[in-house]
Amino acid sequence: TLQEPAERTRVGPGPGPGLACCSYGALKAWLPILSWLPRYRLTWLKMDLIAGVTVGLTVVPQALAYAEVAGLPVQYGLYSAFVGGFVYCVFGTSKDVTLGPTAIMSLLCSYYVDRDPVFAVLLTFLCGVIQTSMAILRLGFLLDFISYPVIKGFTSAAAITIGFGQLKNLLGLQNISQQFFLQVYDTFRPAVLRVPDVTLGLLCLATLVALTFMKSSLGPGSDDLPVHVRGARGLVWSFSTVRNALVVICATCLSYSFEVYGHHLFTITGQTSAGLPPFQAPPFSETTPNGTVISFNEIVLDLGGGLVVIPIMGLLESIAIAKAFASQNDYRIDGNQELFAIGLTNIMGSFVSAYPVTGSFGRTAVNSQTGVCTPAGGVVTSVIVLLSLAFLMPVFYYIPKASLAAVIICAVTPMFDYRVIAKLWRVKKPDLLPFLATFLLSFWQVQYGIVAGVVVSLGMLLYDVARPQLKGHGVTLDSGLRFPAMQYLSQMLFSKALTASSHRSVVLDCCHVSGVDYTVVDELRDLLRQFQQRGEVLIFTGLSNSVLEVLLEAELPGLKHVESVEAALQAVSGTPSYN
Amino acid sequence: TLQEPAERTRVGPGPGPGLACCSYGALKAWLPILSWLPRYRLTWLKMDLIAGVTVGLTVVPQALAYAEVAGLPVQYGLYSAFVGGFVYCVFGTSKDVTLGPTAIMSLLCSYYVDRDPVFAVLLTFLCGVIQTSMAILRLGFLLDFISYPVIKGFTSAAAITIGFGQLKNLLGLQNISQQFFLQVYDTFRPAVLRVPDVTLGLLCLATLVALTFMKSSLGPGSDDLPVHVRGARGLVWSFSTVRNALVVICATCLSYSFEVYGHHLFTITGQTSAGLPPFQAPPFSETTPNGTVISFNEIVLDLGGGLVVIPIMGLLESIAIAKAFASQNDYRIDGNQELFAIGLTNIMGSFVSAYPVTGSFGRTAVNSQTGVCTPAGGVVTSVIVLLSLAFLMPVFYYIPKASLAAVIICAVTPMFDYRVIAKLWRVKKPDLLPFLATFLLSFWQVQYGIVAGVVVSLGMLLYDVARPQLKGHGVTLDSGLRFPAMQYLSQMLFSKALTASSHRSVVLDCCHVSGVDYTVVDELRDLLRQFQQRGEVLIFTGLSNSVLEVLLEAELPGLKHVESVEAALQAVSGTPSYN
Repeated sequence: TLQEPAERTRVGPGPGPGLACCSYGALKAWLPILSWLPRYRLTWLKMDLIAGVTVGLTVVPQALAYAEVAGLPVQYGLYSAFVGGFVYCVFGTSKDVTLGPTAIMSLLCSYYVDRDPVFAVLLTFLCGVIQTSMAILRLGFLLDFISYPVIKGFTSAAAITIGFGQLKNLLGLQNISQQFFLQVYDTFRPAVLRVPDVTLGLLCLATLVALTFMKSSLGPGSDDLPVHVRGARGLVWSFSTVRNALVVICATCLSYSFEVYGHHLFTITGQTSAGLPPFQAPPFSETTPNGTVISFNEIVLDLGGGLVVIPIMGLLESIAIAKAFASQNDYRIDGNQELFAIGLTNIMGSFVSAYPVTGSFGRTAVNSQTGVCTPAGGVVTSVIVLLSLAFLMPVFYYIPKASLAAVIICAVTPMFDYRVIAKLWRVKKPDLLPFLATFLLSFWQVQYGIVAGVVVSLGMLLYDVARPQLKGHGVTLDSGLRFPAMQYLSQMLFSKALTASSHRSVVLDCCHVSGVDYTVVDELRDLLRQFQQRGEVLIFTGLSNSVLEVLLEAELPGLKHVESVEAALQAVSGTPSYN
Repeated sequence: TLQEPAERTRVGPGPGPGLACCSYGALKAWLPILSWLPRYRLTWLKMDLIAGVTVGLTVVPQALAYAEVAGLPVQYGLYSAFVGGFVYCVFGTSKDVTLGPTAIMSLLCSYYVDRDPVFAVLLTFLCGVIQTSMAILRLGFLLDFISYPVIKGFTSAAAITIGFGQLKNLLGLQNISQQFFLQVYDTFRPAVLRVPDVTLGLLCLATLVALTFMKSSLGPGSDDLPVHVRGARGLVWSFSTVRNALVVICATCLSYSFEVYGHHLFTITGQTSAGLPPFQAPPFSETTPNGTVISFNEIVLDLGGGLVVIPIMGLLESIAIAKAFASQNDYRIDGNQELFAIGLTNIMGSFVSAYPVTGSFGRTAVNSQTGVCTPAGGVVTSVIVLLSLAFLMPVFYYIPKASLAAVIICAVTPMFDYRVIAKLWRVKKPDLLPFLATFLLSFWQVQYGIVAGVVVSLGMLLYDVARPQLKGHGVTLDSGLRFPAMQYLSQMLFSKALTASSHRSVVLDCCHVSGVDYTVVDELRDLLRQFQQRGEVLIFTGLSNSVLEVLLEAELPGLKHVESVEAALQAVSGTPSYN
């Protein structure tokens, strides 16, 4: 593999705390390409070329399809698919990750940009600026607060939303709403299905499923096998790996043959702008066809929550993918540098009319499986996309929408992970709560789902902080002691002290308490005073040095501390204790 | 003292979990008056009468003054001062607390009601409904998340804001802004001071300070003293206790004597509506003088954040006071029942044009020191207020504003606790952060201050959860292990495993870990797989039964667990370990 793991334990882009700002090491941290390019070998080039071409054949049909999900003209998918390869090659820390349009980001975009490319491009720019700033401020740690059930709840809901959104194209339905629940209603309303679309769509779907199945049931290859078996294996593997391109090409040929004879059988993609996108600054205002100008401020207000959700989700998706493949291929990634690379990609992307991009799980998997050696594979992919833009756009006119829908449905189906419910139920039932909160609310509005999930999981965490378990007969805190727990603890200590008035002492075992704050100190002072007033004794045991220092500094009156519970029992010998 | 402590360990108004809904015990929990009224003794009556009258003499001048702080006509202060006594007598759980207008609530009101009594009364009603609902839903625990530094930061800032706001009255300045910073600017702008106001104000202030000082320097009384010494002591004590009434009465006499001779020397309170307030439903819309109707929705939108801040702060203030005196006089209060009592007081108050009330620290202290025995003292206070409303309003016309300003300045000065900064610095420096955030932002807008303080203190708490200390040479977690910590922990474990490649095992001591969530389990699975891939061993020690159960249920591959660190070292004997 490419990176030396020991090199990559720093957090944050740019030089780590121990590195001078201008040293070559610091430069290497900012530009990871410097770590691998000087060591580049010719054998790597071959693998990178093969992987790059393979990913390219996947990304072109996907990009066209995802643009449809985002509610934008198809060429915007390709505009978004080539910048990532160049930028990530220089700034990325994982060899496998490929940036570009993804199902989830396209779905999110569709919520916020309302089918307006000007909004989309400005969103890309702002999203890039926000992500780059977060990287420079080293805010990547914010992702730590998005828990696994929240991620799963969100991706499952997104898979259903996206998949369902494509049913209309697969079935050739017209006039379907954007909002999920209305869409469900519209889809199941009795309507005239377009038989050719349905047939083609189901055929594409069946082919894709069959090829996926063939790939997954391919046994491990071996050099011992006869040459013709190896050849057949290779053929199946290649076909199934580029299955998206294959299906879309076949469907396009079919639709082209009908169209040239004047039969408008399928719903096709239709007119798209040909050629490369213009290189220009992102638009900071929009003039509508009827002449009114929408100012920058108005667009920003309109984008609203998207300016938080899209940068964060883009980051989350990309880091999750990078981590998964780093773990599989045994190298370490750098969260903040990844964030920096995505941010830059989005900023650069906004100059070529891209919509926001992030790491794509499916294409990263293809990249990794094809044996990519360095991020240089991404450059090859980008070149393929640029070539398509330059020369293939007239052909894209004939792509049947149903075939693209089949590509998307196959891409998002694995994202819906129904087994996670069983896993959560078996291992940790309370974690179903943030999962369900995120899952259900995501159908309403994605940002509500994620916010609800994060709030629920943090709430559960804070609940445990605020209501520590008191173990044993006496009072042994099972975890730390922080301000939200203090009221509860003093109430419990009082009820302990009161349950039998003959007992005049309570032992509070603090061996698991690693730190206290001022609120705790203040409440303990009060507690000690009240115990003293009643002629009762509160004895602390197992205080760590740091905690004891704080308590001594606060000069709590009547503070009694002994090493162990046994010593406490000896100290109050004669008076029965609770612990 | 009144309550049996053992009776009051329940949380929440109404019957606790073990009590049938309709039993007499349950009824007593809803109506604490049933606990003490049947045992009422004649000696208590005498003390309650004295205390009630004393508090009454304090509340009348304060109520007039606080109405000025709230930006309402002075009679609204008295309207707000009598309902609490009746309601709290029936529903309250502390003998000392007196509900009524307070400096802080008046300040908060002034922000949200914009000098409009209709807004104020509707705010009272909504505040009461919110507080009562919170009590019924047992949401009193939310207060646990407001830490000591936040409370101190807020009250200190409020003291300065209120005190400064009264300077204009003390100095007789005109046309002063409402906003704090503009107020400071306006106050120090060269302007014509009204000499009579300044003189009277400073005189009142000096008298109040002197009387406060005399009271605090009174030694403990004793029955052995000669009768004339005891008499003198009693006189000083009485004078200093009713000092507010005394000062205001003297100032009013002075201003009256000038006014009847036609000398308009002082800025006086002026015309007020005489008599008791009408008993009527709170207004749900307002018709402005120019005929436009402001609807209920518009008023609610206008009140905005006040509908959160005022119920919560009212609750916080009252509970803090009840707790302080319960601790001092050795009885227990019931947070949710207190909340219920305040909520009811506000709902009832809105029918007599009150603005939101809460527990008053100063008057509760007077009540307690005068030796009140039951909440019946509050009824006496209420009667005094009602009598003032019925008969004294014409006299209030002559009260000089400067004397009321002096009353307020003396009341809020002790709220500014500068020593807390030194205490926090000495005991726990990081807790200065939420203090300062709250303190500084409260000058801008109170709700921002409180929200910032809560966010900062929760952020600090979550930081500790997310970045547990790893003690010793090896990896001993010093606290729990929850999802935000997982990324960090696995990074640390990797760098441990990497620092010297000859070491092939890491021991993770989890003796302080009391629970894990699914995110932790998932990340541990990944971690174990990666360790295995590199031929390294990760051994857990000190797992509690509940944690071990979760990990076993999750069927983590290669999970190695031993009882203690020593056993772990034996298990990997031959291979050096980190712990």
